[in-house]
Amino acid sequence: MRVLGERWSILILREAFYGATRFDEFQKRLGVAPNILSARLKTLAEHGVLEKRSAAVGKRYTYHLTEKGQAFLPAYVALKGWADAWMLEGALPAARLFDATTGQEIRAAPLLRADGTPIVGVDLEVRFTDGERSPNLDR
Amino acid sequence: MRVLGERWSILILREAFYGATRFDEFQKRLGVAPNILSARLKTLAEHGVLEKRSAAVGKRYTYHLTEKGQAFLPAYVALKGWADAWMLEGALPAARLFDATTGQEIRAAPLLRADGTPIVGVDLEVRFTDGERSPNLDR
Repeated sequence: MRVLGERWSILILREAFYGATRFDEFQKRLGVAPNILSARLKTLAEHGVLEKRSAAVGKRYTYHLTEKGQAFLPAYVALKGWADAWMLEGALPAARLFDATTGQEIRAAPLLRADGTPIVGVDLEVRFTDGERSPNLDR
Repeated sequence: MRVLGERWSILILREAFYGATRFDEFQKRLGVAPNILSARLKTLAEHGVLEKRSAAVGKRYTYHLTEKGQAFLPAYVALKGWADAWMLEGALPAARLFDATTGQEIRAAPLLRADGTPIVGVDLEVRFTDGERSPNLDR
């Protein structure tokens, strides 16, 4: 989680899902300082989320989502769903996501119980692996 | 997305879901520098994700998830699901999440088509609101 928690990491993954592969594409789309972008791409490649490939002679490297990186899509869709619902203040989302195979829009799924009722934060009980349990959240 | 992209923001939300409310609880659990934590809590409160409440006289403020913050749970569960599946390298997850009402474990949902097949990154088509479309992702 600390890898993702680094500033820009999730935004870099977003741009990779949106088709960016070259350093200058990430840089232009995000407006991030080149030294920071370079460090984040390196970390994401070290963790196997992106794969760095050498392009043709005289061209720069390109960065591609690995299987692990592709598997981040549901988490990205969930993040985008929350941001679109709560952060736009009436503005249109900058992008909408579609399944290229079926043409259907890809949307974030709510957390539902078997009976169809939504699970929200206050319903959460956390069990730590060391045996500790969370206190109930305030309601 | 830039609010969440700031280092520590998602980890602070995690600790809020796990029951932290006091500054020193966040600080101790995350090991983050107090000035950074203070700035992040302020940003999250300004964006209405956390609510800062004054506690009893002589006590410090506490921070509580708002409705908007509670609504982040599906995104947090999706992030945790990805991290647990891809980042632990065989270790146990530090925590597991349960629905306090039913006792059932809360797990990240995959993105599925109506026919039950999973949608992965390479299936993605992005349509930008300004009319531009993403190139197909490399396969």
